[in-house]
Amino acid sequence: MSIRFQIDARAGAARTGRLTTPHGEIETPVFMPVGTVATVKAMPQDILEELGVQILLGNTYHLYLRPGVETVRNLGGLHGFMAWPRAILTDSGGFQVFSLNELRKVTEEGVTFRSHLDGSSHFFSPESAMQAQIGLGADIIMAFDECTEHPASRERARASMEMTLRWARRSKEYFAAHRHENPWSRQSEENPRLPDSPALFGIVQGGMYTDLRRESAERTVELDFPGYAIGGLSVGESRAKTMEMIATALEVLPKDKPHYVMGVGYPEEIVQYAAMGVDMMDCVLPTRAARHGLLFTSEGRINIKNARYAQDQGPADPRCGCRVCSRYTRAYLRHLFVSAEPLAAVLNTMHNLAFYLDTMRSVRHAITLGDLSGVLSGSVSLA
Amino acid sequence: MSIRFQIDARAGAARTGRLTTPHGEIETPVFMPVGTVATVKAMPQDILEELGVQILLGNTYHLYLRPGVETVRNLGGLHGFMAWPRAILTDSGGFQVFSLNELRKVTEEGVTFRSHLDGSSHFFSPESAMQAQIGLGADIIMAFDECTEHPASRERARASMEMTLRWARRSKEYFAAHRHENPWSRQSEENPRLPDSPALFGIVQGGMYTDLRRESAERTVELDFPGYAIGGLSVGESRAKTMEMIATALEVLPKDKPHYVMGVGYPEEIVQYAAMGVDMMDCVLPTRAARHGLLFTSEGRINIKNARYAQDQGPADPRCGCRVCSRYTRAYLRHLFVSAEPLAAVLNTMHNLAFYLDTMRSVRHAITLGDLSGVLSGSVSLA
Repeated sequence: MSIRFQIDARAGAARTGRLTTPHGEIETPVFMPVGTVATVKAMPQDILEELGVQILLGNTYHLYLRPGVETVRNLGGLHGFMAWPRAILTDSGGFQVFSLNELRKVTEEGVTFRSHLDGSSHFFSPESAMQAQIGLGADIIMAFDECTEHPASRERARASMEMTLRWARRSKEYFAAHRHENPWSRQSEENPRLPDSPALFGIVQGGMYTDLRRESAERTVELDFPGYAIGGLSVGESRAKTMEMIATALEVLPKDKPHYVMGVGYPEEIVQYAAMGVDMMDCVLPTRAARHGLLFTSEGRINIKNARYAQDQGPADPRCGCRVCSRYTRAYLRHLFVSAEPLAAVLNTMHNLAFYLDTMRSVRHAITLGDLSGVLSGSVSLA
Repeated sequence: MSIRFQIDARAGAARTGRLTTPHGEIETPVFMPVGTVATVKAMPQDILEELGVQILLGNTYHLYLRPGVETVRNLGGLHGFMAWPRAILTDSGGFQVFSLNELRKVTEEGVTFRSHLDGSSHFFSPESAMQAQIGLGADIIMAFDECTEHPASRERARASMEMTLRWARRSKEYFAAHRHENPWSRQSEENPRLPDSPALFGIVQGGMYTDLRRESAERTVELDFPGYAIGGLSVGESRAKTMEMIATALEVLPKDKPHYVMGVGYPEEIVQYAAMGVDMMDCVLPTRAARHGLLFTSEGRINIKNARYAQDQGPADPRCGCRVCSRYTRAYLRHLFVSAEPLAAVLNTMHNLAFYLDTMRSVRHAITLGDLSGVLSGSVSLA
């Protein structure tokens, strides 16, 4: 039995849903925090649970390099290794292979690249990327795609898209033959209500060309995946262009399957995309921004190191009920940040994640009530 | 009403006690985590509370430089600023002024030094050190002493000790006149059972000379403080010498007042000193070691980055019940550390503090039962 997606309520193009995975249910639309090397930076897993995180993302490229897929498999897969009993999604490694490595060679077979850790040479293909993700034991895994660079000519975007489609087919074939080789397959026999193997999602590419995006979506749907991502966005294009590419793909993607936009976004973006019918999103922004002292609040973004907060006795966000806002002042958070204290990363991250997760909770609530106008206009607590 | 110290049980020279401060009761013997700049590095305050921390230490030197005493006072003193409702002890700044600053000039008046942050020039005296600590709002503050360098000749140790005694008298005089100028004085009117002002402890010096230590203790006792610290230890001397100096001072210090050895120690040390009659200790060791990957366990110290832990599925300490040991494996902790992940500092610190606090809890329990032999031999869970 594979992943299940149930749509519950609708408000325009937006919908709430429940995605049932081998490691529990996810309420959509969902924002997935990024846990690059099996850790959401500075956040203990019990805090993530308390914040209501139901699914987090791991990066196959990084984990493949360190500590290695077999090490993780032997330690119970990612779930056992990082002691996370809820859902995990892994990306295929494609994005980092393309973005982190200047010395790489792309052929029809796959990508040869050098480790950013020690310069050693490695090779990723659709098959090996599937093998790695299955070995890591994620609940949802991604097809191995080519992330089209930006900007790209129409010819380049087409060629890239075509290769992604060929690689998607190869990903699917390998996956079909090996999906049960994951580290927790036997465990799910104990609970027949849960899916017993991971799910593989396809990825729409096509650069910034609406016709290529449409074609990529149609031909990816022909391959019949249980869920579809829209990749290659948030790579420097305008917000309007991002929305246009998302809207184009959403016109084609099946309504009864989950829609995942990779690598987005700012708080106002994730609300907007959810309103358009996007079900899943991931981004390093809340966690990375936190470590740089940028806090997302209902009053907008604040840069906590600013001297104006040195004696500010208010919470980071007066409308936030998280552990940080209910205990600490802006003055204290500023002090921690300018003093380069490790607690700064912990508290800033905790708040930003709470803000993002509360934002999505508000969106789901508004969809259930049939009215997104409040959250879209920002009158409900959003950045 | 000032601080109260009640002795409850005894086992040889050891005793359990309750120290009642303006911000609650402390069970002794106690180990006080160090929260240098108003934060115990990487530990949110709610975790400290959960671990059972009843008192933590702040460094006046650092807080005076950043964010500044008046800023802290205006934000409710350290308790308000760092949102810590329990007890706080501050040192006088003497140690850092001497140890962190090569460019310093000592006169009878006090010490001129340069900030390690920006090189600006500052001056600390017994009076200003009392003023700073009162302004920071600690429950227990320390006399401004001269930390005798090590090694020191007998003449140098005597001269230093004599100045510390003169400075102790000046500390006490200033304190007596200004003790109620703390940030929370009015609040304690609401609870007449708690002391309404901080307590000032004296500090025994004398280098590594038993006769000077004895004399310093006697003459500090003549000044009549509500508690006494033994300073200038753990500065490079042998463990045997440390114990000899502590034992010498303890022979003289009044039995009915709390005894505080500053800056110690390893787990086996803090147990040993508690057995000798020491009531309070502080040290950066558990927290600093944690950030360097050194974990204290019932099986001894482990350096978590060691390759032998790469696939170790056991907890850091099989006999520890802390949140870290009940959830994460050594393999995961090692991965976090070698990957330079911020969560490494969080989890390692959480475990080491749990280990230290559990160690002291075991010691108090053993004293209550009248038998320290188990904890001293290490048969009870200790490093």
